[in-house]
Amino acid sequence: MLRSNAFVRVRYADTDKMQVVYNAKYFEYFEVGRTEMMREIGLPYSEVERMGYILPVLECSAKFIKPARFEDLLRIETSMLEIPKPFLIMNYKIFLEKDNTLLVEGSTKHIFAKMPDFKPVRPFKEFLDIVNKYY
Amino acid sequence: MLRSNAFVRVRYADTDKMQVVYNAKYFEYFEVGRTEMMREIGLPYSEVERMGYILPVLECSAKFIKPARFEDLLRIETSMLEIPKPFLIMNYKIFLEKDNTLLVEGSTKHIFAKMPDFKPVRPFKEFLDIVNKYY
Amino acid sequence: MLRSNAFVRVRYADTDKMQVVYNAKYFEYFEVGRTEMMREIGLPYSEVERMGYILPVLECSAKFIKPARFEDLLRIETSMLEIPKPFLIMNYKIFLEKDNTLLVEGSTKHIFAKMPDFKPVRPFKEFLDIVNKYY
Amino acid sequence: MLRSNAFVRVRYADTDKMQVVYNAKYFEYFEVGRTEMMREIGLPYSEVERMGYILPVLECSAKFIKPARFEDLLRIETSMLEIPKPFLIMNYKIFLEKDNTLLVEGSTKHIFAKMPDFKPVRPFKEFLDIVNKYY
Repeated sequence: MLRSNAFVRVRYADTDKMQVVYNAKYFEYFEVGRTEMMREIGLPYSEVERMGYILPVLECSAKFIKPARFEDLLRIETSMLEIPKPFLIMNYKIFLEKDNTLLVEGSTKHIFAKMPDFKPVRPFKEFLDIVNKYY
Repeated sequence: MLRSNAFVRVRYADTDKMQVVYNAKYFEYFEVGRTEMMREIGLPYSEVERMGYILPVLECSAKFIKPARFEDLLRIETSMLEIPKPFLIMNYKIFLEKDNTLLVEGSTKHIFAKMPDFKPVRPFKEFLDIVNKYY
Repeated sequence: MLRSNAFVRVRYADTDKMQVVYNAKYFEYFEVGRTEMMREIGLPYSEVERMGYILPVLECSAKFIKPARFEDLLRIETSMLEIPKPFLIMNYKIFLEKDNTLLVEGSTKHIFAKMPDFKPVRPFKEFLDIVNKYY
Repeated sequence: MLRSNAFVRVRYADTDKMQVVYNAKYFEYFEVGRTEMMREIGLPYSEVERMGYILPVLECSAKFIKPARFEDLLRIETSMLEIPKPFLIMNYKIFLEKDNTLLVEGSTKHIFAKMPDFKPVRPFKEFLDIVNKYY
């Protein structure tokens, strides 16, 4: 299984008048989690795009357990439970770093595609070669 | 049942380098849909907050069918299928206005709470008095 | 002179924990103002891009006079004081629609360029043909 | 003089269809720069707010020299050239970390105020006690 950690500090811009992080913002944090994982395994997403592939989100969901607040340091734990065939599914848990409280859980489902017409393709060889090592 | 329509035009700011609207942005469009509905039934969300209540999102999800693009005019159809007891559930469909293509489906689940400690409460009387008329 | 009005309603997502619209958000409102103006004169910015041109921002500034709040309806008055030669300069005033209070003033300075290398070019003929009618 | 460095990595969410970081986003990066500086000198902005003060932005500006791109690591150099009397002025330079190219310059001008009515006040003692050490 592939699992990695990324960290974000909550910006003022991320909060709303409820004094906590705005719901949609967590999906940006999920993005930070999965791009960090890709970088860690040696396949940065910017590199994936240079190779002509994209990984658009087909579905996403989140469950908000406790709110994150301005200046909180958050740990985003990203997991890829299985090798994509063909969908890539990422699971996320966001923790308050200082005491490891679970704040948010979520997931995103991606497909491999090619620009510019978003044509679906099979997971590409360079990706599978790297990912297979972890399973 | 309660159902209403709201419209947004896709901003350049909403797009990403994939040339389409960024996934998290649709949850902002969902917000536009539900606040428009609340305004339409005579209970603007800013008024709800002035009465001391908030409606934080507990869960949310989205399914992306086709991408929206810069300057597209989108119609957000928001539905509240049943009277909250106690959870408020909103369903959304986002259409490309010009040809009624379905682009995105999603939902948000809310709880009624009070500031500043996010204490859960029952749906408040003023809300139920208005909503009950539609069911 | 070219001048036009666009309207936005403040979203919850636009606010921050100071209970007002976050400073960077006004530059998105400026974008709404200038793309609305382009649409009004018959040259939507998406069309400009299809013709191969882009108008990246070189400089921008804003002065915040009074805060905008959640659900406020704002009027964005956008003015192009002179024909670009070669820089395109847009001036903005954001008003609270209900009582015409001036909230924000600002400007953006753009250059005409071509993708993908952002090569600067002179204002293109189709643009000047339309704009010249107003001066 | 007070000067500090903060780092951000460009998110996919920060980019727009021009393939580069959207102009308004840099003002969020400026926020990262100044809140990092406040944390470094031992006066986190969340602490400032707990003491009852806010530092709303009165004016801001930016000059865009070269574009930042997805996954770029950026260094935000924030400088406070003088002790606020009464305005707090922050200057920012954003560099591409890998080769120190200057991408963006800008500034923000703040006033000290009190919530909830944004009443302007003089810079407060705890702030001046810390800041005076650097000048």
